[in-house]
Amino acid sequence: MATDSVIFDRIALIGVGLIGGSIGLAARRANCVGTIVATARSAETRQAAIELGLADQVAETAAAAVQDADCVILCSPVGAFGDIGAEIAAHLKPGAIITDVGSVKGAVVEALSPVLPANVHLIPGHPIAGTEKSGPTAGFASLFDQRWCILTPPEGADGHKLAQLDAFWTALGAEVDVMTPAHHDLVLAITSHVPHLIAYNIVGTADDLEEVTQGEVIKYSAGGFRDFTRIAASDPTMWRDIFLANKDAVLEMLGRFSEDLSSLQRAIRWGDGDALFDLFSRTRAIRQQIIDAGQETADPDFGRHNDDDDG
Amino acid sequence: MATDSVIFDRIALIGVGLIGGSIGLAARRANCVGTIVATARSAETRQAAIELGLADQVAETAAAAVQDADCVILCSPVGAFGDIGAEIAAHLKPGAIITDVGSVKGAVVEALSPVLPANVHLIPGHPIAGTEKSGPTAGFASLFDQRWCILTPPEGADGHKLAQLDAFWTALGAEVDVMTPAHHDLVLAITSHVPHLIAYNIVGTADDLEEVTQGEVIKYSAGGFRDFTRIAASDPTMWRDIFLANKDAVLEMLGRFSEDLSSLQRAIRWGDGDALFDLFSRTRAIRQQIIDAGQETADPDFGRHNDDDDG
Repeated sequence: MATDSVIFDRIALIGVGLIGGSIGLAARRANCVGTIVATARSAETRQAAIELGLADQVAETAAAAVQDADCVILCSPVGAFGDIGAEIAAHLKPGAIITDVGSVKGAVVEALSPVLPANVHLIPGHPIAGTEKSGPTAGFASLFDQRWCILTPPEGADGHKLAQLDAFWTALGAEVDVMTPAHHDLVLAITSHVPHLIAYNIVGTADDLEEVTQGEVIKYSAGGFRDFTRIAASDPTMWRDIFLANKDAVLEMLGRFSEDLSSLQRAIRWGDGDALFDLFSRTRAIRQQIIDAGQETADPDFGRHNDDDDG
Repeated sequence: MATDSVIFDRIALIGVGLIGGSIGLAARRANCVGTIVATARSAETRQAAIELGLADQVAETAAAAVQDADCVILCSPVGAFGDIGAEIAAHLKPGAIITDVGSVKGAVVEALSPVLPANVHLIPGHPIAGTEKSGPTAGFASLFDQRWCILTPPEGADGHKLAQLDAFWTALGAEVDVMTPAHHDLVLAITSHVPHLIAYNIVGTADDLEEVTQGEVIKYSAGGFRDFTRIAASDPTMWRDIFLANKDAVLEMLGRFSEDLSSLQRAIRWGDGDALFDLFSRTRAIRQQIIDAGQETADPDFGRHNDDDDG
């Protein structure tokens, strides 16, 4: 992470929201790129990108942004990737790496492979990092520190290009793993997509009740509900695209979740305390393993009490 | 909260885990009680209670602890309340308040009303505060600051006693609300019990997968899954008792959750992006209201990045 050697002379960021903006800041912190050029659809965001130091230059279109770039990083919602690919295809530097930060990978390969020229290298990627905030002001340089970034190179991908992209993410603070797009999509369905879906769902259910007012839900949310509202505050467009693009894996994992939930529901209805106790005992160990793996804070209550209490 | 006037000459804490221990520390911080006597089933916990300053005195049995106490607070899992009530009944001071901190209220009234003598005042209570930790070392004095405490007095409860208990919780830092046991149980089913159940459930589902290893679930948990592991690390005995004791309200809210989830599942299967987008947009506002109500930190990612990054 503390490299000061230039990995890419020029990178292009297509989109500078939370992730794209953080890549710009982290690349600048690591001094691992020459020039960062960014584009965004709105003039306001392009202006913000310069003011916030997310990029050295901005371009009005994706086609202009990718000129001469050694690495192009798509950081917009995945639903737009097909159109962006078609727009930039004729403007890419031969030998350039085309990558992305999308939360699904099979659909990215499907959208981009047919439209990109043969002389560039498509290596999709996904940093497992983020917050519930979005937009250019949400980014920060340390977002990827100690987080995993998964790369899903197609079979027969150029080893040198893969190593370059690996070095780039390592310079940004991340640890890199490589797997197939299909396996990525299955892993993320259970570690990210279904968790987001059930968080969105319970917040919706609570919002729709008649017997309990919304004011009561808000007042007494510290009993557990508020935890779910964090990921249910994530970007709606991005998440719509993820569920549409990872349909099969999400439906598979959701089916398992619902089966298990029906079984718990039955245990409650029939007063089977042992079944409840067994599950509740088993799940405690997993959090500790996540903490031990450096992927979670060990502080009780996520460390919230350090922040919002005045002692 | 900064009162230094004595509300109770003597209180008895039956159980000194996270909540009981925090009551002892918060009451001492507020200087609002004369003597705090505590009991716990294990000698080790009683020893810890003295060493940690959770109580001034300990007693070996609940029957001994309640002698001369003006206010008795049951802080053990609710499944044990019937037995505890029977044990202490003959030893209670006439006029004493008997209250508790259990997460269900209808079942507490059912368990305690028949066994308590007529000359004491049962006023069940529930502070909506906690962390995923348990045991006497998990307590801290500021746990109840800015959190709500719900009291569920029976019809015709003594107004003076209710006011005393309200003043006590206010001195501990909490804000007090009053409602019926049945309404409490419905509100908590959606704000706490069902959230805990689905968190336990998804952690169990992830633990059971064959296609995705447990190592992968742990490594990539920052995509959302890890948020659920916090409440799924809560005390198993306590939560088993809650689900058994609040069966009807939990099944009602769980039914609504499952219906809504089936509808989302259908939207994903049929590619109905508008339905997904509509829900995902609606849920964002609720988090902001919870933050505005002082029940949640405004920091992105629960403020985790303030703790676990070295910048």
